[in-house]
Amino acid sequence: MALDSPATTTPTPLPEPPKTPPQKYGMLLFPAFELLDVFGPLETLQRLTSYHKVDLILLSETLDTVTTKPGSSNMNAHNSTGFPGIVPTHTLDNAPEMDVLFVPGGLGTRSPNMNRTIDFIAETYPKVKYLITICTGSRLAAQSGVLDGKRATTNKASWNSTVALGPKVDWQPRARWTVDGNVWTSSGISAGVDATFAFLDWAYGEETATTIANLMEYERHTDPDWDPFADTFEVPGR
Amino acid sequence: MALDSPATTTPTPLPEPPKTPPQKYGMLLFPAFELLDVFGPLETLQRLTSYHKVDLILLSETLDTVTTKPGSSNMNAHNSTGFPGIVPTHTLDNAPEMDVLFVPGGLGTRSPNMNRTIDFIAETYPKVKYLITICTGSRLAAQSGVLDGKRATTNKASWNSTVALGPKVDWQPRARWTVDGNVWTSSGISAGVDATFAFLDWAYGEETATTIANLMEYERHTDPDWDPFADTFEVPGR
Repeated sequence: MALDSPATTTPTPLPEPPKTPPQKYGMLLFPAFELLDVFGPLETLQRLTSYHKVDLILLSETLDTVTTKPGSSNMNAHNSTGFPGIVPTHTLDNAPEMDVLFVPGGLGTRSPNMNRTIDFIAETYPKVKYLITICTGSRLAAQSGVLDGKRATTNKASWNSTVALGPKVDWQPRARWTVDGNVWTSSGISAGVDATFAFLDWAYGEETATTIANLMEYERHTDPDWDPFADTFEVPGR
Repeated sequence: MALDSPATTTPTPLPEPPKTPPQKYGMLLFPAFELLDVFGPLETLQRLTSYHKVDLILLSETLDTVTTKPGSSNMNAHNSTGFPGIVPTHTLDNAPEMDVLFVPGGLGTRSPNMNRTIDFIAETYPKVKYLITICTGSRLAAQSGVLDGKRATTNKASWNSTVALGPKVDWQPRARWTVDGNVWTSSGISAGVDATFAFLDWAYGEETATTIANLMEYERHTDPDWDPFADTFEVPGR
């Protein structure tokens, strides 16, 4: 099982950057997605629009507003109110062509109603150039089978329950993000911003990534192995 | 003028934390707000719901979906598409009572149509316990007059044009965030997350803030004077 010896895995080298950089970015939305998983990467993509054409596709099962409200009241123990709602641009059934598909995480990934979303990842992965998972978005990707045989990481606070869903995945217990072929995966929540920057750095060049990070006043983690949270959450095999 | 000698200003000490921590948080929305200015702080507040009741109020002039699409085509030079739309919960005219008002920034702060929003800040500041500005949200707060005589900071990449709008503000050219009485201001975009964490640390305790940061896999900047971007953007008086 991959979990026994991940620390000795030799990292795969980065592929050659694309001659034509990506333009069409899809972001999967579903109820109770994690806000920063989605809007950290989208902030960097909006900044990228100053230098490149970006078409952003916000995908959900229907065109209804997607709420971040937890799906069950026991996940909202203090009865908090006012969870933001986001408007998708396309349904899963009429998704346009995409260069990149982002799969975010969040409480909603644990919902029993994710089958259509998981199937969508399986159907769509062969048609996109790159897949990028953020946080527990890897739960959905693992269940779709597209991570099988690939190096991947995930949220360190919910490590055990996520890796159990992908027994054929080469899970990396200490990684801010991973790259294996055209699959990029990130650790929890904030790690999605660093993974997105690493992707922009690779696909559009370091100058573009650095300019965007400076304008965001964001101090990037540029080492994919930087991961103190593997220790914080005592991830097995770290 | 405050700009001549801000580096020698003695920082004001943090006020005493509140006996009853805040519950009702308002976030101002307007067309072409900056995504991460809004959703960085909201991510931390959603995580706070695990420990405290949080009522989030998303405020805009109308209940129409608020888009982050730039208001003019020359701010979208490559004709990018698919800017996210967010659904407000209340209008400025029916805003409920709030403990904290967040004012985000973004291209929209430069719109000529911000008078109602600026007036709202002036009307609302005396009624809230705390005001927190993110990035160029300080442009709106400065124009409303509520920053006059107070220490404040702002986005370092658009420093000159912002401080010109608040000649009576004690602008701090090197600060990740500032606190002056019940007014908290932050530097650009990502700095809003650190300022929000500093606020949560102060209002709810360090353990809560650290737990949330770990679950977000976020490495906080905890020094309000950490500000390499003051040099990057050659802010006068830094």
